[in-house]
Amino acid sequence: MKKFINNVEDILTESLNGFGLSHSDILKIHLNPNFITRAGKSKEGKVSLVSGGGSGHEPLCNGFVGYGMLDAACPGQVFTSPTPDQMISASQAVDNGGGILFIVLNYSGDLMNFEMASEMVGIENLTVLVNDDVAVEDSTFTAGRRGVAGTIIVKKILGSAAEAGASLAECKALGDHVNKMTASMGVAFTSCTVPAAGKPTFEIGDDEMEIGVGIHGEPGRKREKIKSADEITRDLVNAILEDLKPDNNAEVLLHVNGFGATPLMELYLLFNCAAKELEKNKVKISRSFVGNYTTSLDMAGASITMCILDDRIIDHWDSPVHTAALRWGM
Amino acid sequence: MKKFINNVEDILTESLNGFGLSHSDILKIHLNPNFITRAGKSKEGKVSLVSGGGSGHEPLCNGFVGYGMLDAACPGQVFTSPTPDQMISASQAVDNGGGILFIVLNYSGDLMNFEMASEMVGIENLTVLVNDDVAVEDSTFTAGRRGVAGTIIVKKILGSAAEAGASLAECKALGDHVNKMTASMGVAFTSCTVPAAGKPTFEIGDDEMEIGVGIHGEPGRKREKIKSADEITRDLVNAILEDLKPDNNAEVLLHVNGFGATPLMELYLLFNCAAKELEKNKVKISRSFVGNYTTSLDMAGASITMCILDDRIIDHWDSPVHTAALRWGM
Repeated sequence: MKKFINNVEDILTESLNGFGLSHSDILKIHLNPNFITRAGKSKEGKVSLVSGGGSGHEPLCNGFVGYGMLDAACPGQVFTSPTPDQMISASQAVDNGGGILFIVLNYSGDLMNFEMASEMVGIENLTVLVNDDVAVEDSTFTAGRRGVAGTIIVKKILGSAAEAGASLAECKALGDHVNKMTASMGVAFTSCTVPAAGKPTFEIGDDEMEIGVGIHGEPGRKREKIKSADEITRDLVNAILEDLKPDNNAEVLLHVNGFGATPLMELYLLFNCAAKELEKNKVKISRSFVGNYTTSLDMAGASITMCILDDRIIDHWDSPVHTAALRWGM
Repeated sequence: MKKFINNVEDILTESLNGFGLSHSDILKIHLNPNFITRAGKSKEGKVSLVSGGGSGHEPLCNGFVGYGMLDAACPGQVFTSPTPDQMISASQAVDNGGGILFIVLNYSGDLMNFEMASEMVGIENLTVLVNDDVAVEDSTFTAGRRGVAGTIIVKKILGSAAEAGASLAECKALGDHVNKMTASMGVAFTSCTVPAAGKPTFEIGDDEMEIGVGIHGEPGRKREKIKSADEITRDLVNAILEDLKPDNNAEVLLHVNGFGATPLMELYLLFNCAAKELEKNKVKISRSFVGNYTTSLDMAGASITMCILDDRIIDHWDSPVHTAALRWGM
C-alpha cells in the first residue's frame, strides 16, 4: 500500500486538520466528535443543511460546506458512516431557527445513524434521501438504490433554496424532486485500497471492468472485458435515460465524475462521448461539470450523472456558491 | 492499459472537444492547429498571455484560459511540446495590441518551439521561463531546472497584472520575479502510463518512491523506501526552503498538488504535515490551494510548491479569476 500517511488511525484527523488549515476562510473543523461548519454565521431563520458520510470520497461531503451549499458535514472514518453524536453536535452548532434538513446518501449505516440523530437532536428536522445510482437495487451496504455523485446536485440546489428563504418543508419537497430528476451510473477499472485494510477491496483482471460499480467498490451490473470509451458511455447513458425517461429536447445538467485515479483528460473525453450519445437521443446539455467530486480513494473509473432541468433548478444551480470544491459568483 | 479511450491517436482531439463543450461559457477550442482561447474578447491594449505544453497534465494549461489568467493555451500531444504553428495561430487570435507574453515551462522541446514562434509571429513579444522545480539541475528533457506546479502561480499573478493594465515589459519583469520567489519539489509512488506507450514510463518497487520526480516521470534526487508522510514532507519542504531562503516570519502561498492518482484526503494530510514543518521554520502560510492541478496522467504522488508573498503578489493572487480550473470573485 502506497499512501501519504503517518499512522493509519490518524489519517482522518490529520487530513481534516489540513483541510481546515487550507480553507480557514470558508470553514471550521471540530474534532471529537468530528464535524465541519461554515466559518461565518448564516442568516437567522435559514434552514440548516447537514450532511455526512464515510470519508474517502473527498471532496464529498466536506468540500461542499459553505455559503450556498451545506451548513455542516459529518465525516465518518474511511467508508464508514458517521455516528449520531456527530450529527447532533453539528446540527446544534448550525441551528439558525429554521429547522435542520439532513441530506443522506442511501446506505444502511448512514440511514440508521441519521434516523437516530433525527429522533435525538431536539430540533425540528426532515431528511432528503439521495438514491441516484441506477445500477442495482440493493447492494452490499444498501437496501434500495445507492446514493452517489448526484448528491452534489441535490446539495447545490437545496443550498441555494435555503439561502433564498425556502422553508424546511419546501426544501424537503424540492430535494425529493431533484433526487427524482437525477440518475447516475459508474464503471471501475481498478479497485480502491482502504488504508486500514491495506489491500485492494476487490480483485479485477487486467482487461476487465465493473459496470455499475458502487463508490465503495460494491459489485455493479456486470463484469466485462474493457470496451471503448464510446461503448462504455453508451451503456451508462442508456441506463440513465431508461430510468429518467426525459421528454424529447429535455435539458439536462451533465456531470462526469472521476473516482480518483482517472486523469481529467479522460474525463473530458468521456464528456465528449456522452454529448454525442445525448445528441442522438435528442437531449440537450444546458449545464455541466467535470472532475473528481465523488471519489472512491484511488479507484480508476468514472461515473456519469444527469439531472433533468427546469427553470427553478437552473436558477438554483447558477446562484452563487462558495465552498472548497465548488465556487462561483463570489 | 486501462483508459477511457476510443483510438489512441484521437485521445487529444476527443478530450479537447469534451473540454470545449463542457466550458463553452469560458473558452473556445480551435483544431488544426490546436489551441484554446477565451470565449469573450479581452480589453483593447491588454497584454495577451499565451502558454502551452504537452497534454497529460490537465487541468494545466488548458484549464487556466479565461478572465484573469491566460488568453490562450496550446496543447501538444501527451507529454510532447506543442509546435510553433499552434503558438503563432493562438497569438494572432488573441492579439489585443499590447504584445504577447509567452509563459513557458523549462523543457527543451517547449523552449525551442516557443523561441521559433517568438521569432516568426510578427507581434511584439517577450517570454517568461518557469523553472521552479528544485529537485535537479538538468534532466531527461531539460537543461537547467524543470518547470512544474509553480507555473500556476506565475500565470495567476501575470493574468491579474495584465487585466490591470501592466505593460508587456512590466509583465515580463513581474513574471521573472514570481518565478524566482517560487519553488517546488515532488515525489512519485507509481509511474504514469502514456497512452501511446501502453505501459508504465518507469519501473518502481512496491515499497519504493522517487523523491524529486519530474512531471513526466523523469528521475529525481533519490530512490528510497517509502517513509511516513511527515518524513517525506520534511524532505520536500526543506529542499524548497534551502532554495528560497525565506526571512523569518516570511509569508508564503502553499500549494499541495496531486499528480493524478492520489486521493484528496492524502493531499490535505500532506498540507497538514507541511504546515507543521513551516511553523517549525517560522514561515507563515497566508494563502493556500490543494488539489490535482499539475498532473502526470495517472501517476500516484504529489508535489509541494511555495511562493514567497509580498503585497503586490497577494493582491494579484486574490483578484477575480474565471477559468475552468480556478475561479473566484466572479
